[in-house]
Amino acid sequence: MPASPDSRRRFLLRGAALASTTIVPAQTVLTAAQVIGRIKQNVGIPWREQTVDRIIAGDPETKVIGIATTMMATLDVVQRAAAAGKNLLITHEPTFYSHPDTVDQLGNDATYQFKRDFLRRNNMVCFHFHDHWHARRPDGIAVGMARELGWENNADAENPHLFSFPATPLARFAQEIEARLKIRTMRVVGDPALPVRRAIASWGNVSQFPGIPLLARPDIDALIVGETREWELVEYAQDMIASGRKKALLVLGHVVSEQPGMKYCAEWLKGFIPEVPIEFVPAAEPFWRPGSPVA
Amino acid sequence: MPASPDSRRRFLLRGAALASTTIVPAQTVLTAAQVIGRIKQNVGIPWREQTVDRIIAGDPETKVIGIATTMMATLDVVQRAAAAGKNLLITHEPTFYSHPDTVDQLGNDATYQFKRDFLRRNNMVCFHFHDHWHARRPDGIAVGMARELGWENNADAENPHLFSFPATPLARFAQEIEARLKIRTMRVVGDPALPVRRAIASWGNVSQFPGIPLLARPDIDALIVGETREWELVEYAQDMIASGRKKALLVLGHVVSEQPGMKYCAEWLKGFIPEVPIEFVPAAEPFWRPGSPVA
Repeated sequence: MPASPDSRRRFLLRGAALASTTIVPAQTVLTAAQVIGRIKQNVGIPWREQTVDRIIAGDPETKVIGIATTMMATLDVVQRAAAAGKNLLITHEPTFYSHPDTVDQLGNDATYQFKRDFLRRNNMVCFHFHDHWHARRPDGIAVGMARELGWENNADAENPHLFSFPATPLARFAQEIEARLKIRTMRVVGDPALPVRRAIASWGNVSQFPGIPLLARPDIDALIVGETREWELVEYAQDMIASGRKKALLVLGHVVSEQPGMKYCAEWLKGFIPEVPIEFVPAAEPFWRPGSPVA
Repeated sequence: MPASPDSRRRFLLRGAALASTTIVPAQTVLTAAQVIGRIKQNVGIPWREQTVDRIIAGDPETKVIGIATTMMATLDVVQRAAAAGKNLLITHEPTFYSHPDTVDQLGNDATYQFKRDFLRRNNMVCFHFHDHWHARRPDGIAVGMARELGWENNADAENPHLFSFPATPLARFAQEIEARLKIRTMRVVGDPALPVRRAIASWGNVSQFPGIPLLARPDIDALIVGETREWELVEYAQDMIASGRKKALLVLGHVVSEQPGMKYCAEWLKGFIPEVPIEFVPAAEPFWRPGSPVA
């Protein structure tokens, strides 16, 4: 088959030729770079110059046989994705233990090497998809969380992080979240009897800013977060309550507080990537409680 | 009484005169600055130029009527210290929600103002005592933790953070820590059956460095920390275990993981500050679990 003058078509064919000795119809072959190109076209916002969203491991020219989305590309997730025939992993959180996935200090670390080598041996690509999935309107994580919690009708029309409820005592409100997200190690600050009517979520990690002004909003009873520092926002929440304000802080855990957003991401990808199978691979909640160990 | 030519004596008398219309014997009057001066003399290491250890609130010339030590000067702790007649609070963690206690962004915040005004109204001084209490040899926090856990005989002679035990399954090891420190929301990563023989502690917060090399030490089964990020050290611990290594990470909670170190600080202060009453005021563990709410 002669080379097409269309360079994108040539590119696709080169991928096919590398992967197989038989001619494969061009439309069934996508490289990781092409999948990422489609994500950039479809995310609905300009791609940022400064971002952690990039290929963390693997060759952009890799032919994609399947795509897995996940909250965090732990080694367990990587192994399960490989076993399921997915070699492009789209992960919301880091692969190599820091937000920018810098590996300078990890070079001689056996765990880092094990994971890097597993990815290479299995011809896998990890794409960090954090900033733009949040920046999309509406925020992709927020969409997935509202769905999983069954809170779509409770969400504010303008702000998908803001929710209204019939007054629910904080203890019951927390138990409902725990049950719906199947959380083992959720933590709560506040009076268990506090009626929760309005809650705002900051899924994932939140620092003292914007955490403090979010919790201080007069219309808010409860702030729901994934992870936050005990000597910053947690101390502030305790003080706000001790000063007489009726407030609560719910700390769900980072993975469980964003995971459904990457389940939704798999659905979203299917809308413009029909060529390869796409699957959500959940990351395990990392922790268990001493009274309730999990093997 | 005529002014003494000794300037330190004059200084003491001025404090007494401000605080009382009757003459008080000079040796019973100490200012906050004088107490801090004695701490600097007794801590056993040179005072650092760059440090968070400074007066966060109050006037250094304040006459001290009682000293409270605490893990974290939450508003609740501040109020209990005031009720107990202690106006110098020596706190390991911040008063105003960040490690350097910067208040630039808090000026108009009602909770910040409430706490600041309570401290002023009650003539209180908060002294942040973090860096030097850790830098002291042995680390003052480590001494208090080993005592509270009953691990003094398990500690390494050279390293008070390193402990040896008869092989104990991780689940039981975790339950023993939970019981001894009365923790409500401890979290564990690892195989509950893992035999723990050697553990190393990084009390308080730990970042991915030095957390990663600590957990990777070949002689270590378990790393015990107060607080650490889920997308950094926690992911690493999960990966290390998934790669086949026998390891565990125990995340106690920040306050509970250092608090006994400030109980010990009260004892230490009594050794060189006999003039005023000194008391340890515990900070509450901030969290409860949805299944076990605490009013």
